[in-house]
This record gives sequence, structure tokens and C-alpha cells, in this order.
Amino acid sequence: MTVKIETKQQAEDFLAQYDYFLFDCDGVLWLGDHLLPKVTETLNFLKASGKKLIFVTNNSTKSREAYLKKFAKFGLTNVSKNEIFGSAYASAIYIKKILKLSTNKKIFVVGEHGIEQELHELGYSTIGGTDPELTNMPADFNALEAPFIKNVDPAVSLVLAGLDTRINYYKLAAALQYLHDPAVTFLATNIDSTFPNKGKVLPGAGSIIQSIAYASGRTPRSCGKPNQEMMEAIKAEHGFDPARAVMVGDRLNTDMKFGRDGGLGTLLVLTGIEPEARVVDLQGTEEEVKYYASKLGDLYELVVENRE
Amino acid sequence: MTVKIETKQQAEDFLAQYDYFLFDCDGVLWLGDHLLPKVTETLNFLKASGKKLIFVTNNSTKSREAYLKKFAKFGLTNVSKNEIFGSAYASAIYIKKILKLSTNKKIFVVGEHGIEQELHELGYSTIGGTDPELTNMPADFNALEAPFIKNVDPAVSLVLAGLDTRINYYKLAAALQYLHDPAVTFLATNIDSTFPNKGKVLPGAGSIIQSIAYASGRTPRSCGKPNQEMMEAIKAEHGFDPARAVMVGDRLNTDMKFGRDGGLGTLLVLTGIEPEARVVDLQGTEEEVKYYASKLGDLYELVVENRE
Repeated sequence: MTVKIETKQQAEDFLAQYDYFLFDCDGVLWLGDHLLPKVTETLNFLKASGKKLIFVTNNSTKSREAYLKKFAKFGLTNVSKNEIFGSAYASAIYIKKILKLSTNKKIFVVGEHGIEQELHELGYSTIGGTDPELTNMPADFNALEAPFIKNVDPAVSLVLAGLDTRINYYKLAAALQYLHDPAVTFLATNIDSTFPNKGKVLPGAGSIIQSIAYASGRTPRSCGKPNQEMMEAIKAEHGFDPARAVMVGDRLNTDMKFGRDGGLGTLLVLTGIEPEARVVDLQGTEEEVKYYASKLGDLYELVVENRE
Repeated sequence: MTVKIETKQQAEDFLAQYDYFLFDCDGVLWLGDHLLPKVTETLNFLKASGKKLIFVTNNSTKSREAYLKKFAKFGLTNVSKNEIFGSAYASAIYIKKILKLSTNKKIFVVGEHGIEQELHELGYSTIGGTDPELTNMPADFNALEAPFIKNVDPAVSLVLAGLDTRINYYKLAAALQYLHDPAVTFLATNIDSTFPNKGKVLPGAGSIIQSIAYASGRTPRSCGKPNQEMMEAIKAEHGFDPARAVMVGDRLNTDMKFGRDGGLGTLLVLTGIEPEARVVDLQGTEEEVKYYASKLGDLYELVVENRE
């Protein structure tokens, strides 16, 4: 059964069930450039109530440090680095704690600075990534004569790919040279096909990764929602009981699936892309959502402000 | 039943059945930088016998003009432009004669000069492609502010994608803006995942196209072997009877499938990647090859040189 949280009692019953609150960000906390109503108050109230908050985002271009700045821009200064779980960090944790890759091994990166930064923080050496030698190709560039094609580094035992708005043929070809070796692991930060940006829809990490997957004939594991590799990474870091955790999001096929597949409770907010009718229609199906609310801020308004 | 051509009689029987000879190039005429034995003599002999020759290649980066130069480099100076069918030209013919796209419509190109050249020869205007504005992105490039993202050209009604060793995020994102419109046709020159080059395996046209396909959620028709769009284009240009035509190639899953699906005879030569045992094993199956020979030059050696 799906419960719409509309009364103080419903909100209190919901809150009493969970100690860990995992949040999607865009569509839940903010929409594009605008913070949603009562988000600051709700997050502070949850923290004051002893709840543990984790912010989960598929964005792979930003490190946790960079994401903190985004929170601060919205005035959410009460958030700390260890509460943020981007897919770059999730991938780094997955490599370290689940795959247990030795830090003697190198990682070839297709992606932006956020990925490199998270890997370096966990002690890994990377090649590729934002290296100017791969990014700034001269007009007379010849891939075959280029160092990353001619000489593969035998210390590389994993290729991690994410969104890279500086992608080029050289990077794709270099990643392929490593993936010819089946002993080299192929991992994706996330496989989102697109992302919205200022009214436009742009190619996402998945569209970069799909290119490498097709050339190599290999399918990577993905550390982004809804894939459970991200959940495993979060659990490896925070060690919570899924029965005492809830995933809060605005998308059925990513956030809600992510929570459901991980055995967590689910709360869908209607401030993103899903219409209420769709949520109601899913009652009794496998995709049923446990709770939904008009907006995240309703929790604060109902419990603290005693809104009728 | 599969016949291995080993005697003069077998070679003559084979030749008598066909007026049109479609040839794959690499692995049949040459291998990398080396012309295979008696190829020049065989092609001249076939022409002198009144046979019509068509050279079919999935390479989309070269126009027919550029391909002629490659033939000339091997001393094959007896080949003319209208005997060459690359996937760039096949795509242009397919657009003109099968899709019947008006030349008032523009084509957005992801690919190299060969594609643009073939489209221009058939009267089409292209945008994208090798335009320096898309290819030479400055370090501080911002896709959202760039003209191809901000302003889609309403005259574009087709996106043609092929191999582009100068691919970048801007080109991928621009192609996606056009493909958001379901009225815009999505066409691929070919979907080869990789191609060999001087001992290395590099990403092929298909790996560029797969990126755009994944982002747009659309699957293009492909004008390369083994897809029959290329056969339709060849027929639209040369108008032959499939029963009087044979496809000569070195690959079962591209060349032989291409000929078989088109209702042509098939001749596999063992100078490429397939071993003889594999060809023999396929007898009696759906993938059975009609004829095979150790090399293309056997036809000349058996019929003209009376080799025993």
C-alpha cells in the first residue's frame, strides 16, 4: 500500500521508522537553480532529531568537495563532505572496499576532475582523465603514434568511465587498448543517457560509456543509481541496516528502484518529474512506492509547524 | 553445397554464372599495405571478359575520389570512380534514391570529409561535419552557449553519422539536439565496432554512432555491410539482377551475410580472417557459402595461366 503523507500523524509515523535518510538532490532539494520550500528547515530538523543524512547523486563530474560548494550556493551550509555520495566517490569506494583493488594498481580514467580527485583521495594513481596530452589534441593528431595507444601501461588494471565533456577519439581509443585485456576491469560511474541543463538535454555519462562498451564488446558495472553497486558502496562506508533506511527521490526508475532493490523504504516527492496519478497507478504492482508527498518540506510543515 | 574452386572447370563454371562481381577490398584485394597475388591480373581479366566490378567498403572516412587514390597506390589504376561503393557514398545514394530526401533539406553530419564530399556531389547542403567551429573547441568551451546547441537549424531533416576521429562532446550534443525531433531521420554509414590499423584495434564508426543512439534512445538504419540498405543503394545505382551477381569477401558475418541476404551468390577467399575449417563446417547450415577459394588470384591462375 502507498501512503501519501498529509497529516502530522502520518509524518511522525514515517519518521519513526527510519534512522538513515538517503536523498536524491535535483528535484528533491532544489530544481535547477532554485531551492525548494522548507528544505533547509527539514534537513536541520532531521539532523536535530538524530537522523543520519546521505545525499546521493549520479553526477560524476563533481567531487564531494565540489558538491559541497553547490550545497553552499543554495545556503545549505549545514551539510558536510561525508554526507555526500556522488557517483565518482561511490566508484572510488566501490573500487577500494568491494573490488579491493590494490593502490599499487593504476586506474585509466575517462572523465573529469571529480573522478580523479576522489580516486586520488583514496590513494590511487590515475592516468588519462584530464591529462592535457589526451585532451588537447593538435589538428594533425595521429592516434596511432600517440603514447597512450603505442604504449599501454601494464600497471593499469581498471578503466573507470564517466561523463567527460572533453571526450575525444584519442581517449576512446586509449580506453579500448586497456579493455582488450579481459583482466582489466571496466567500471562506469553511472549510465544515465542524458541530463537536463538549462532547458537543454545533453548526452550523459552513459552515452560516453556506451561508445567504449560497443567498441570493446564489454558491459561495465555501474556505480550510479539505480544500480546496487552504489548501494554497496554506501553501505561499505556507512554500514546501515536497510530496514531502518529510506530513499527519498523524485524519479521512479532511478531513485525509487534504487531504494526498493536495496531493501530500503521509499519516499517519492512530487517536486520532480513524476505526476501523482502515476504513483497511485503503481499501487499493488512490483514498482509500488511506500510513501509519497507533495514536497520534502511537508515533513517540517506537518510535524514542526503543525500545518493542518 | 559449398564448392572450393580448385580446377579450371570449376573456375569457368563459377565465372559463367555471374555478370556482376561485388568485392570487399581489405583481405580480398590487399592485406594492410600489401597487394595480394595476381589481383591486378584477375581484375583486368574479369573486365576483359565483360564483367561489371563493384568495390564495396564500409570505410566512411574516404570519398570515392579518395578511395581511387588508395587503389592507385596499389597499382590498381584500371579502377574508376563509379566502380567504388564506400559507405559514405552508399549513404548519400540511399538518402537520394531510397529516402528521396529533397536537396532543399540539410543534413547534419557527424563524420569526416568523405561523407561531406559525397553528399555535396549529390546536391545536399551539410552542417556539422568538419566545420572548424565544431571541431576546434577552446579549453573554456561551454556547450550550452555554443551555436549548434542554442540554435538548431529547422532545415535539417537528417543526421548522418560515421567514423569521426575528431569526435568531441559538442558534436555529440549537437546531433542529439536534432534527434530529439522524431521527424529527423537518423542514418549511420556503418556500425562496425572497431577497425584494425597497423597492428592496433581502434574504435569504429559504430562506437561513435552507439553513443548518439544511446543518448537519443534511437536506432539508426545503417548503410554498411551486412545491412541491406547498402545493397539497395548499389542496386539503385547499378540496377543488376541479384541472381547474376556474386559477393566476394573474406568475412562470413559481414561480406557473406551481405551477399546471401541480398540474394547474390557468395565467394569467400581465405586471404582474410576466416579459416577453411570454418567454411567447411558451415555446409548445410543457413550460413553456407556457395563458393570459396584460397585467394582471388586463383581465378586467373586456373583459367588463364592453366595452373594445374
